[in-house]
Amino acid sequence: MQFHIEKAASHDRDAILNVMEPWNMHHVPSAEMAELDLSCFFVARVSGNIVGAAGYKVLTPEKGKTTLLGILPEFSGMVIGRALQDARLQAMHAADVKTVETNADRIETIIWYKKHYGYHEIGSLKKVCDFSLSDVDHWTTLEMDLDAYMKTKNDREARRKTYIDRNDPHPLSTYEPLIINACLTGMVPTKFSNPHVPIHPDEIIEDAVKVFDAGARIVHLHARDENGDPTPDAKHYEKIIGAIRKERPEMVCCVTTSGRSWKEFEQRSEVLFLSGQAKPDMASLTLGSLNFFTGPSLNSIEMIERLAMTMKAQGIKPEMEVFDTGMINLAKYLERNRLISGKKYFNLLFGNINTAPATITSLALLTQALPENSVWAGTGLGQFQLPMNTAAIVAGGHVRVGIEDSIYFDYRKETLATNEQLVGRVAHIAEQMQRPLATPEQTRQLIGLEIEE
Amino acid sequence: MQFHIEKAASHDRDAILNVMEPWNMHHVPSAEMAELDLSCFFVARVSGNIVGAAGYKVLTPEKGKTTLLGILPEFSGMVIGRALQDARLQAMHAADVKTVETNADRIETIIWYKKHYGYHEIGSLKKVCDFSLSDVDHWTTLEMDLDAYMKTKNDREARRKTYIDRNDPHPLSTYEPLIINACLTGMVPTKFSNPHVPIHPDEIIEDAVKVFDAGARIVHLHARDENGDPTPDAKHYEKIIGAIRKERPEMVCCVTTSGRSWKEFEQRSEVLFLSGQAKPDMASLTLGSLNFFTGPSLNSIEMIERLAMTMKAQGIKPEMEVFDTGMINLAKYLERNRLISGKKYFNLLFGNINTAPATITSLALLTQALPENSVWAGTGLGQFQLPMNTAAIVAGGHVRVGIEDSIYFDYRKETLATNEQLVGRVAHIAEQMQRPLATPEQTRQLIGLEIEE
Repeated sequence: MQFHIEKAASHDRDAILNVMEPWNMHHVPSAEMAELDLSCFFVARVSGNIVGAAGYKVLTPEKGKTTLLGILPEFSGMVIGRALQDARLQAMHAADVKTVETNADRIETIIWYKKHYGYHEIGSLKKVCDFSLSDVDHWTTLEMDLDAYMKTKNDREARRKTYIDRNDPHPLSTYEPLIINACLTGMVPTKFSNPHVPIHPDEIIEDAVKVFDAGARIVHLHARDENGDPTPDAKHYEKIIGAIRKERPEMVCCVTTSGRSWKEFEQRSEVLFLSGQAKPDMASLTLGSLNFFTGPSLNSIEMIERLAMTMKAQGIKPEMEVFDTGMINLAKYLERNRLISGKKYFNLLFGNINTAPATITSLALLTQALPENSVWAGTGLGQFQLPMNTAAIVAGGHVRVGIEDSIYFDYRKETLATNEQLVGRVAHIAEQMQRPLATPEQTRQLIGLEIEE
Repeated sequence: MQFHIEKAASHDRDAILNVMEPWNMHHVPSAEMAELDLSCFFVARVSGNIVGAAGYKVLTPEKGKTTLLGILPEFSGMVIGRALQDARLQAMHAADVKTVETNADRIETIIWYKKHYGYHEIGSLKKVCDFSLSDVDHWTTLEMDLDAYMKTKNDREARRKTYIDRNDPHPLSTYEPLIINACLTGMVPTKFSNPHVPIHPDEIIEDAVKVFDAGARIVHLHARDENGDPTPDAKHYEKIIGAIRKERPEMVCCVTTSGRSWKEFEQRSEVLFLSGQAKPDMASLTLGSLNFFTGPSLNSIEMIERLAMTMKAQGIKPEMEVFDTGMINLAKYLERNRLISGKKYFNLLFGNINTAPATITSLALLTQALPENSVWAGTGLGQFQLPMNTAAIVAGGHVRVGIEDSIYFDYRKETLATNEQLVGRVAHIAEQMQRPLATPEQTRQLIGLEIEE
């Protein structure tokens, strides 16, 4: 609900006393309070009606005190009290007040003043008439250092916000805009299994354009040769990346260094030496050896180190692929040996037969194990893609999605997917979950890519 | 991809040998294989084309053998081989074959036959021509007990499916249809904070109808008195439940026994003694004491036991409310003391200031602590409602959603929610996630409510 704070006008007197009535703060004039000085009052309005009010008084050139503060009970819990107190502190500060005195009798109110404004108790005052709580016969007198409070206010608010962003669940801590990484082709899918899998460079380029327009900001690229087989030959990547940069210059291009179809460093790293327009922004770095149904995929620590060193030398950001908890250990090992640094980007892949299962428990476990200063995308293989994408959106991660990981659109395996549809569905779910999609510039900033001027 | 299996026709010979060629199984006629007997062959077709084939031979009245089996490599991984093998076993079984012999040389094929069909090795056979792997000079001869296999086939398949449903992540294990539980009113929201909160019985009835039509199958009800304040007075519930049963007889009606506004057992349990059309199906049972910002909510173990006993005596299913891990201990304590039994329904509520935080880690922790034979719904308080609802949909749980827990529709608190919109959004996300909504009958079955004839 929207409210706003403004200075009181002289005809607001009755409305202000009405607001005070539920709190037994409306005995004006009385032995304790001669009259309201409406020039020193603020009111809070909702839809034009006064629902809260707060006053103050400048006692001496350097000393002020607060007078009444009240909010209609049904409008409590909306931080209107904070806004009213801030307004009167601001006004006293503008009048050169250095210390502020406040009297209170309710214990929750005393806690509130101490917690938010740094008040401390300086004494107590006998009540002279029936104000506020009838079973408490005195006011507790509190004092705050207004000067110190104002000097540190912005800092403390910024620290509070940072604290929340570092420690609290989303959306209390702000969600980052969502980065969609589209894995278009992979090593395995064929035209036989899904005619929509892009194989020829022209098809890959066409799909890259479509997924960018559907919201993807990274493409994860695998080249295929004339027979449709995976190839490490950099000339294919050169053609693909060159064309993507022409069609959608803002797309982040990530190439594979997979060792599933060939195993020599020279083949795996060939694509890292492309230059100029064809130089990739990122390259995959699988952080361990693992089994697929089709056979083991070997990534020795030595191989991972050589690939990481080459990426570092070439100024290419690793897209670290993690299939299980132990692979995250290796990211930390690489970082403490300075083979990787700065913002780190992880793809967490769940649901392979012999690695971390596609459960929220696994997702929680892996994300909590990541090193500081990391961003991560979650995905699942096959039918696990959609649930793990969605869990990642909830948990504040990013998403990897595409035919490489799932040739089907549905769990029943009745509908073949297109990359555009897979990206479109994730973008739609993100919208439902109120997570905006990252702009290209936000993507580069979040991942820690150099932004070219 | 769809395939189907059929008996081979005589003109299929060339297509069958073509399928065998990539596996070096096409030397027919040869010293090892005189000719194909096409009357004992099955073929697998995709879009009319033969992509796999398998043959057999009945050797003696009780003994059969398999001959060639091959699938075009690009169609592997689609369980076509299983379907072809099943077809020829079925044919031999129909011809009264009791044991089946199979020769294989590839190690992965030998593992496949043993794993799926219970073959064991009985010997080996020298190869007489260049069939299959050229570096293996003999066939491993395998044998299976066809009779035993056929007798146990359905049982084993059912056990396999049950195993998956008990042990594997969704959607490999089947998702249950989603039950949406709409918490319409609660104890706290007022017309001031959200004019859409249903307060008057007529408004509650109207919202119950709307949320049922939007997909909710349970309403969680709190009555308010003439002043809009929470009331334990059963006559309000009588009116509300009576009218809901008339308007939407299939709705599951759940009443609160909350002790937040009054503390005596007699008040908390009053609603449990309604009878006839007004008898509630379920009643809330909060499994411990906890703090809200507005103050502690006390539920002593003795109070919980008395409420559970009364529900048991009245035939009302508890809707167990869990705010943190320790509350689940109490469900187990109640169950081992037989105060609750059968299917158990839990609402897991995350994101309150002093209980389990709204993270997937908490969700994983709590769901894994639940006793056997439980269903659970996940929700978050305030802005945590949507993410925790969505995480619950991913994790295979159900959902509690409504104004009771969140008066806003968006994280920025700019748009006030209606119950119909909140339920509609969850239903839409469930549709995206390919989780059908539970029918009223499925709801009662999943929760373990008696289904009235």
